[in-house]
Amino acid sequence: MNTVDIIIKKRDGLVLTKEEIEYIINEYANDNIPDYQMSAFLMAIYFRGMTDEETYYMTMAMLHTGKVIDLSRIKGFKVDKHSTGGVGDKTSLVLAPLVASLGIKFAKMSGRGLGHTGGTLDKLESIAGFNISMSIEDFIDQVEHINIAIIGQTEEIDKADKKMYALRDVTGTVPSIPLIASSIMSKKLAAGSDAIILDVKVGSGAFMNNIADAKTLATLMKNIGTMAGKKMTCVLTNMDEPLGFAVGNALEVIEAIDTLNGRGPRDLTELCLTLGSYLVVDAGLVSSLAEARVLLLDQIKSGKALAKLAELVEAQEGNVDYIYHPELFDLGEKVELRAECYGYVERIDSYQVGHASMLLGAGRETLASEIDYSVGIVLAKKVGDIVNPGDLLATIYTSGKNTEQAYAMLKGAFKFSEDPVDAKLILDVVR
Amino acid sequence: MNTVDIIIKKRDGLVLTKEEIEYIINEYANDNIPDYQMSAFLMAIYFRGMTDEETYYMTMAMLHTGKVIDLSRIKGFKVDKHSTGGVGDKTSLVLAPLVASLGIKFAKMSGRGLGHTGGTLDKLESIAGFNISMSIEDFIDQVEHINIAIIGQTEEIDKADKKMYALRDVTGTVPSIPLIASSIMSKKLAAGSDAIILDVKVGSGAFMNNIADAKTLATLMKNIGTMAGKKMTCVLTNMDEPLGFAVGNALEVIEAIDTLNGRGPRDLTELCLTLGSYLVVDAGLVSSLAEARVLLLDQIKSGKALAKLAELVEAQEGNVDYIYHPELFDLGEKVELRAECYGYVERIDSYQVGHASMLLGAGRETLASEIDYSVGIVLAKKVGDIVNPGDLLATIYTSGKNTEQAYAMLKGAFKFSEDPVDAKLILDVVR
Repeated sequence: MNTVDIIIKKRDGLVLTKEEIEYIINEYANDNIPDYQMSAFLMAIYFRGMTDEETYYMTMAMLHTGKVIDLSRIKGFKVDKHSTGGVGDKTSLVLAPLVASLGIKFAKMSGRGLGHTGGTLDKLESIAGFNISMSIEDFIDQVEHINIAIIGQTEEIDKADKKMYALRDVTGTVPSIPLIASSIMSKKLAAGSDAIILDVKVGSGAFMNNIADAKTLATLMKNIGTMAGKKMTCVLTNMDEPLGFAVGNALEVIEAIDTLNGRGPRDLTELCLTLGSYLVVDAGLVSSLAEARVLLLDQIKSGKALAKLAELVEAQEGNVDYIYHPELFDLGEKVELRAECYGYVERIDSYQVGHASMLLGAGRETLASEIDYSVGIVLAKKVGDIVNPGDLLATIYTSGKNTEQAYAMLKGAFKFSEDPVDAKLILDVVR
Repeated sequence: MNTVDIIIKKRDGLVLTKEEIEYIINEYANDNIPDYQMSAFLMAIYFRGMTDEETYYMTMAMLHTGKVIDLSRIKGFKVDKHSTGGVGDKTSLVLAPLVASLGIKFAKMSGRGLGHTGGTLDKLESIAGFNISMSIEDFIDQVEHINIAIIGQTEEIDKADKKMYALRDVTGTVPSIPLIASSIMSKKLAAGSDAIILDVKVGSGAFMNNIADAKTLATLMKNIGTMAGKKMTCVLTNMDEPLGFAVGNALEVIEAIDTLNGRGPRDLTELCLTLGSYLVVDAGLVSSLAEARVLLLDQIKSGKALAKLAELVEAQEGNVDYIYHPELFDLGEKVELRAECYGYVERIDSYQVGHASMLLGAGRETLASEIDYSVGIVLAKKVGDIVNPGDLLATIYTSGKNTEQAYAMLKGAFKFSEDPVDAKLILDVVR
């Protein structure tokens, strides 16, 4: 097989065979195909697309270029969750202990944040002592014993994706639906769970900025997962405002704790109950979403969901006191942003809020940036709220870094309307 | 300026500025942009194309990444010629001495052959002693004194094109009209002549396999040359059969000598007279193509054109005896291909004839291949000729290498028709 012939075949819009796709992915992962051929191939895919079968073959080829985690010795139903990257998205911190408290096995390998979106690992590390590194053996042991573990993604899985993702970032080939789908699904399938739930963000600052594209991506990922024998659910959620009120590491952990205490923001709570209900049904605990929701609400009311988070923190060497006394979290100095006019909040640009938070030190501009866990933003108003001049819009928590710049950016994120505005979080479900 | 932003801009179909194009070409030539970004950029150009202005800016940026030959100290009208690569194309060997014998300055830097098409330099080197390497100073001196020089392209010109051409070859980005145009024109403009005549081949085995694309390419190159202040002519010629009868190095030089003696194949003679007439008019020697043709025919009849070829050979250290005694050329053993049926020759596939000749040793499969000057193919029939069973179709000249394979391929190149067939060489002229 010849690499340039495969590039030309894709360039000319023809459908590649399983063998051709396996050849190019394997040889690239093994450093036998140079980056300059792969980037031309990726750009050809950007323009020509791939069929569902081609994308499935690519996903499977990618996943086999690294270690595939074998969770089979864990008894019970194993689930995994992934989000395409949101602002204020602390869903995993709530969802994982919530469903694990019902006996469902939540084995999650997570990523770091980069740019305007945060990462679950960084948020967990704002809890003093929390350790995200452990061997795969210990990871499996922990899930077996307490139903939950959240660790960093091991370097050993999906070698092709690591190389391809870095290459796409510098060659203008990120926003391609088959490339996004195969990147996400090859990592998720390598992680070995029985069911996968995906949160596909739609709107400003998300990979997908319209519902049609997001639905295409969601359907493709569902098909790939189904072909690989997984129970799949994709939820399309609105990113036209941040999720919940808090953006920033310690601030988001505090909000997750509030939510597990039944006092969380309406949108975040709703999203966690929705995602959780699908997983509870997939696991066979009950047969309807309505029954599942009752079960989940009980776990919150009884304190069992929060206790599961405490168990997770303890197992991973974090200070459990933070979970029951969130006032222990070190937070920055407060700076208030207040409204100057009257109106309904029409939009709170997620990208700008995420970027403002990153400027304060809550996120990474480059992979080498150090994170300040104590800084961030807490919104006081959400889309649809009515605002009068002088009302608090948001509070900035700062250590003094880029405060003015972040303030200006945050202020620019708010758009107002004279007419009432409807906020809608869950746009569609593909299952 | 940021490379990935420029890639994305082209990917999204926007028009790049002069500065953006200059940035990407200069930084790539200086090894500051990696191959993997350039190949993604080239693939984006493949899909999105470029405006004439963009292609002109790219051509000019490419040409300035290397030395620009200054021919200004040569008095008189300087011309250059380029062909997009034909089979049996020995036009330069006839055209250059023909117009130089009229006082027009023919300063040509030429290339090696690769694959199924031969190169002028390889053909000249079949003349014992012929030297294609000399300094730019000596090159200019020779054109000043005897009006003609044909040498290898110096490594110093058009650094960007060398890198881009090698990259396109392995990334499926060769057949893009703006990339072909800028590659050809940047080299031609770097060579410093007053007029450029281009022979764009159309048909099997050519870059362009239909007239519409060839005309688009020709018009684009004419526009680029005109913007750069050159007198431009592009002739579209049919490559549905080889040019003339001979394919192979010594065999083609012999045919070129025959043509300068007035005994050449009809199609080759017609092409040389056509190209020559435009150059004679451009040089201002006469005002009409008809008058120009009379002048050129006189140079053949009087023997002055052939004498100019002898002068070129002598100046470049070749053995002049070969020019007046072509029987001195060492040729391989003859193997005849004869017709098995009755019919009109409908087509003689150029690619297959060129490939058969390469297999015999007349061309290079890779850049490292050694050439056998004595081998090749001489056609006995051309498109439109009538053929009876047993008639000679072609003679193979072989040193024993791949003879059977070449015979089979050559046999497969002939297509016959029951109806009379018209052969047309010159398809169009863009001027």
